[in-house]
Amino acid sequence: MAVVGASGYTGEELVRLLLRHPQAELAVVTSRQFAGKSLAEVFPRSAHHSAAKTLKFTDASPEKIAADAELVFLALPHGVAVEFAAPLLGAGARVIDLSADFRIKNAGTYREFYGHEHGAPGLLADAVYGLPEIYGEKLREARLVACPGCYPTSILLPTIPLLRKKLIKPASIIANSLSGVSGAGRKAELDYLFVECNESVRPYGVPKHRHLAEIEQELSVAAEDTVTIQFTPHLVPVNRGILTTLYFAPTEIGQDAVQIDGAFRESYANAPFVRLLDDKALPDTKNVTGSNFIEIAWRHDPRTGRLIVMSAEDNLVKGASGQAIQCFNIMCGYEETAGLL
Amino acid sequence: MAVVGASGYTGEELVRLLLRHPQAELAVVTSRQFAGKSLAEVFPRSAHHSAAKTLKFTDASPEKIAADAELVFLALPHGVAVEFAAPLLGAGARVIDLSADFRIKNAGTYREFYGHEHGAPGLLADAVYGLPEIYGEKLREARLVACPGCYPTSILLPTIPLLRKKLIKPASIIANSLSGVSGAGRKAELDYLFVECNESVRPYGVPKHRHLAEIEQELSVAAEDTVTIQFTPHLVPVNRGILTTLYFAPTEIGQDAVQIDGAFRESYANAPFVRLLDDKALPDTKNVTGSNFIEIAWRHDPRTGRLIVMSAEDNLVKGASGQAIQCFNIMCGYEETAGLL
Amino acid sequence: MAVVGASGYTGEELVRLLLRHPQAELAVVTSRQFAGKSLAEVFPRSAHHSAAKTLKFTDASPEKIAADAELVFLALPHGVAVEFAAPLLGAGARVIDLSADFRIKNAGTYREFYGHEHGAPGLLADAVYGLPEIYGEKLREARLVACPGCYPTSILLPTIPLLRKKLIKPASIIANSLSGVSGAGRKAELDYLFVECNESVRPYGVPKHRHLAEIEQELSVAAEDTVTIQFTPHLVPVNRGILTTLYFAPTEIGQDAVQIDGAFRESYANAPFVRLLDDKALPDTKNVTGSNFIEIAWRHDPRTGRLIVMSAEDNLVKGASGQAIQCFNIMCGYEETAGLL
Amino acid sequence: MAVVGASGYTGEELVRLLLRHPQAELAVVTSRQFAGKSLAEVFPRSAHHSAAKTLKFTDASPEKIAADAELVFLALPHGVAVEFAAPLLGAGARVIDLSADFRIKNAGTYREFYGHEHGAPGLLADAVYGLPEIYGEKLREARLVACPGCYPTSILLPTIPLLRKKLIKPASIIANSLSGVSGAGRKAELDYLFVECNESVRPYGVPKHRHLAEIEQELSVAAEDTVTIQFTPHLVPVNRGILTTLYFAPTEIGQDAVQIDGAFRESYANAPFVRLLDDKALPDTKNVTGSNFIEIAWRHDPRTGRLIVMSAEDNLVKGASGQAIQCFNIMCGYEETAGLL
Repeated sequence: MAVVGASGYTGEELVRLLLRHPQAELAVVTSRQFAGKSLAEVFPRSAHHSAAKTLKFTDASPEKIAADAELVFLALPHGVAVEFAAPLLGAGARVIDLSADFRIKNAGTYREFYGHEHGAPGLLADAVYGLPEIYGEKLREARLVACPGCYPTSILLPTIPLLRKKLIKPASIIANSLSGVSGAGRKAELDYLFVECNESVRPYGVPKHRHLAEIEQELSVAAEDTVTIQFTPHLVPVNRGILTTLYFAPTEIGQDAVQIDGAFRESYANAPFVRLLDDKALPDTKNVTGSNFIEIAWRHDPRTGRLIVMSAEDNLVKGASGQAIQCFNIMCGYEETAGLL
Repeated sequence: MAVVGASGYTGEELVRLLLRHPQAELAVVTSRQFAGKSLAEVFPRSAHHSAAKTLKFTDASPEKIAADAELVFLALPHGVAVEFAAPLLGAGARVIDLSADFRIKNAGTYREFYGHEHGAPGLLADAVYGLPEIYGEKLREARLVACPGCYPTSILLPTIPLLRKKLIKPASIIANSLSGVSGAGRKAELDYLFVECNESVRPYGVPKHRHLAEIEQELSVAAEDTVTIQFTPHLVPVNRGILTTLYFAPTEIGQDAVQIDGAFRESYANAPFVRLLDDKALPDTKNVTGSNFIEIAWRHDPRTGRLIVMSAEDNLVKGASGQAIQCFNIMCGYEETAGLL
Repeated sequence: MAVVGASGYTGEELVRLLLRHPQAELAVVTSRQFAGKSLAEVFPRSAHHSAAKTLKFTDASPEKIAADAELVFLALPHGVAVEFAAPLLGAGARVIDLSADFRIKNAGTYREFYGHEHGAPGLLADAVYGLPEIYGEKLREARLVACPGCYPTSILLPTIPLLRKKLIKPASIIANSLSGVSGAGRKAELDYLFVECNESVRPYGVPKHRHLAEIEQELSVAAEDTVTIQFTPHLVPVNRGILTTLYFAPTEIGQDAVQIDGAFRESYANAPFVRLLDDKALPDTKNVTGSNFIEIAWRHDPRTGRLIVMSAEDNLVKGASGQAIQCFNIMCGYEETAGLL
Repeated sequence: MAVVGASGYTGEELVRLLLRHPQAELAVVTSRQFAGKSLAEVFPRSAHHSAAKTLKFTDASPEKIAADAELVFLALPHGVAVEFAAPLLGAGARVIDLSADFRIKNAGTYREFYGHEHGAPGLLADAVYGLPEIYGEKLREARLVACPGCYPTSILLPTIPLLRKKLIKPASIIANSLSGVSGAGRKAELDYLFVECNESVRPYGVPKHRHLAEIEQELSVAAEDTVTIQFTPHLVPVNRGILTTLYFAPTEIGQDAVQIDGAFRESYANAPFVRLLDDKALPDTKNVTGSNFIEIAWRHDPRTGRLIVMSAEDNLVKGASGQAIQCFNIMCGYEETAGLL
């Protein structure tokens, strides 16, 4: 197995999890920046793994990578992943892409949200959206998996069961999300300096964040209708974690607590990483950071008639690298939780 | 002037600001816990002020306090303030209360949200809600001022101008607020330990927080109709600051950007502490912490038709002690900004 | 196996690690505060483990505990652990104590530093100090293990190899330590509130912290002479982590870099959790938090002639619960790293 | 008055303080990066000041600056300040430099620590080291002031009184300092990203940090002998604040508490910003951040015979911009505390 572009936070987390995975055998790790260095040198946290001491970053071509690995994770920036995916697939490798490059089915929507033509529109149809709780079956045979964004995961898992059962009105959806700073990636930009983020809370990307494209695509599938939502991301001073608060107008049957509860319990009865909270508990990012779990809780508000659903996840794990490994486990026929507990 | 109950974060901030105020003369400071100690001993940050070295906390009765001070700030817990207010007013003092005790006009609403009968319902009618941008004129002659809560300030100032001009639909209001931990007060409770709050983001008080009572009361006045809103507070790991994101369905005229802009600019043309952001800027708590300013920005979302308004304030200053001093300045005929710049 | 008193941060971490341990079988968990609740209810992070759902906290007596478990971890406050240890040992259980109760060999020293008579001085001689890198052999057969404090671990591992080889002058030792707030335990005290710790850096316990008793005891053993050191702990706003900077005057042979390097490499050649840093790297708590590793680096200063040694560890893992499990592994004949990688 | 190079944290703090200063009139502000923008646009926190709205950043030459301002603050990077100072002084302006360019008297020492020849060695002799508590008299007539570094201020003020009175042995001095991240400046570097600093504690610059040059220069003056010290800086996750812990071997008279206490009280009897702590209090950065105060406390350790002195300051205020204004006040004959309380 190979990891391409492992120098960011997502790549580091992916490597860390793969090194601990009982079945995974990491054979190739590439990074232009770190070519020639060992994993142990670049990622001090993983320095004790024997593989980390021997495995060195390379700057290998897609062809060379495909020759050494049957399955390749792409942890590359948006727009770069697409350049690796086509030759890798052509050479017979299966690809799990953590970028946004293959999440959008419609090349026009991609252009609208990402500002340029898609580099390989012919691959879009075959890509499977890597949300195992929703596309588990399709993932088994997938050749190209597009792992969801961190915000989309935190919004889709609490919303899809309700839309499928027609318990909420699609036009009413408002998603208010709070993200830790690792979500911005490992980029040397002033906005993400410690002093700029610490003791700061701020919205950004208002009102049209790129993640809307994939969120609305998947919600539309669930609703069997075109869905447009309100989404506001905020930056809060934690390293990891996304807390999303969702506001819905319930349909008539959605006003019944038993229906809401049933929709969640039925949808996620066999989902090992969805934690539906009981009783009085509300999600808290500190209960899920470092793990692949997502916590979900909900409340009806009798005063306004609205339904409020809240979720918490680790943006780097369930929102990125952990979910990629969950997909990998399904694709390879391993336990879905292998290496993730 | 006197400050009663100055041992919490709000009280400390109030004392700090009053010591720097050019006209204020702090004569009495009371605290059961600290009686006998000097201000300098209890509040190391203010230890250099000559008054902090000489002024000692007492445990004086309301009568004694009223004999020494014509104006009294109450920085007491909810339910305790009411016990001091009546005798102080009876003895001729003017009272600025920072608790929730006199914010609600309707004693029944008070009972619904606070769970017990109000201790002095006869005083409610005369209390002026201490939001200077809205009740500036009434504050001049007020004998009893009820300073708004921190969340209400962050919600009311961005919403009232829009409701007054009928630019938004009252039933559509959703307020999503993020607060720093000082909002919970200086209480030795496990929930507010560093380790429980750091690297944690969480909602709480869903769906019926006490502050709804005063928020809806004041929005109803502005709308000239009964208003019920959605409000979700969250705790985020900063010392100070509230960031509120508001979602509104605009009325027909509210879809006109000129109307929205005009409503804000007209309402706050003479408001020295309201900072309406231009252009591309969005509020950030770090731009207002330590100051009495509130930042407000807004965006129309052409995709959903909604109006999004965001505000940032320091919960201990504009949301509590700074606003109390702003009221004090107006009551005493001083510059509204005295001691606050 | 049993864990007694699992309600603090140390206890929670211990339970979390034991649930993941391949050989450990947690049969009993006690806590007066949480008796009757399941592990999953009290520790949301561990809620997915099947054992966490079925295992409930009890308030069992030592006799009852000993009947159900051959090995017992005590995660109790200082002074309480001793009350459980004697009956447990009497009933045939092996005991791993995480408190300070059995760390000091000399009952008089215990009295000096802890302010009261020791409750079971007869047990002190048999207790093994649970620092596996130093007492590995003795741990195999130990009946009572006294796990080191978090500060002592961060000071002893970088110092003992140098003292044993006579590379530093014992009277010159200065240890400057910085600890995360979880080191203070899960106590509802004002000093450890988020607002009191965030944006704060402060020394405490100057100049005579209790941990000096065990630090000096163990350094004296290594030096074969009485050692008295300077030690200043500081509180810094992180959840986890201790960074210790040590200042030594080297002896004549200690001025030779080869000797220093050799002492460390030889001492820790087979120590799986000691990470000796190469080249230009310096310890950073973020490289060890969540793990049982300790990072150590050193520098000679040619300008002053001093030797500076720095270490980083997670106070709750290598400084407490992880080290306890490392001891447990050795006592039971498991891999030393079992459940800890 | 002019501020040259006001785009970093130090420059922003300087501008903020000058805008509030009752006597200061800011006429010129320069920044290549922000030329053409108003202060209000660049520094949102100061947006309410009328001067901030009208004053625009320029990219003026030293000659032009000197024509408009009699006194110029230089908030430029090391090595750049020297290029501005000479022409400004030549044109008759008085200069307060916040960089390291004029702190070192000996051009050879400058070369040793800064790695290149000094750009204007002829100016070094006339520069006054801007530590008002030590050089207050000289500052009155100074034409060129070299403001101390943040670490040096935190070390010199607690040490100089003891050296002058021969109460400590110069060769014994060890300074262990912890700094907030703003000390690294506003630079887009990976090391200072939020995620790299939050939940991280780490030493750096071991064992020869550049600030040693000025620290040892000034300590040598106080001791009337060459002093070489041990100094280890650490980065801790706070925005502002330096906490320094100093270890000294006292001389015979230095073992007398009355002598230590007297040295501090006598030296700082008229120093308005030095806060000598009484009794049991220890310094805490949160008591001084945002202010120009430095807190100092000390303890004799009867077990080791050492003297421990601790200080806390705000690195951007007493360690930089506040101290620069304190110098400015003295140079202009204003109250030393003007604009700083």
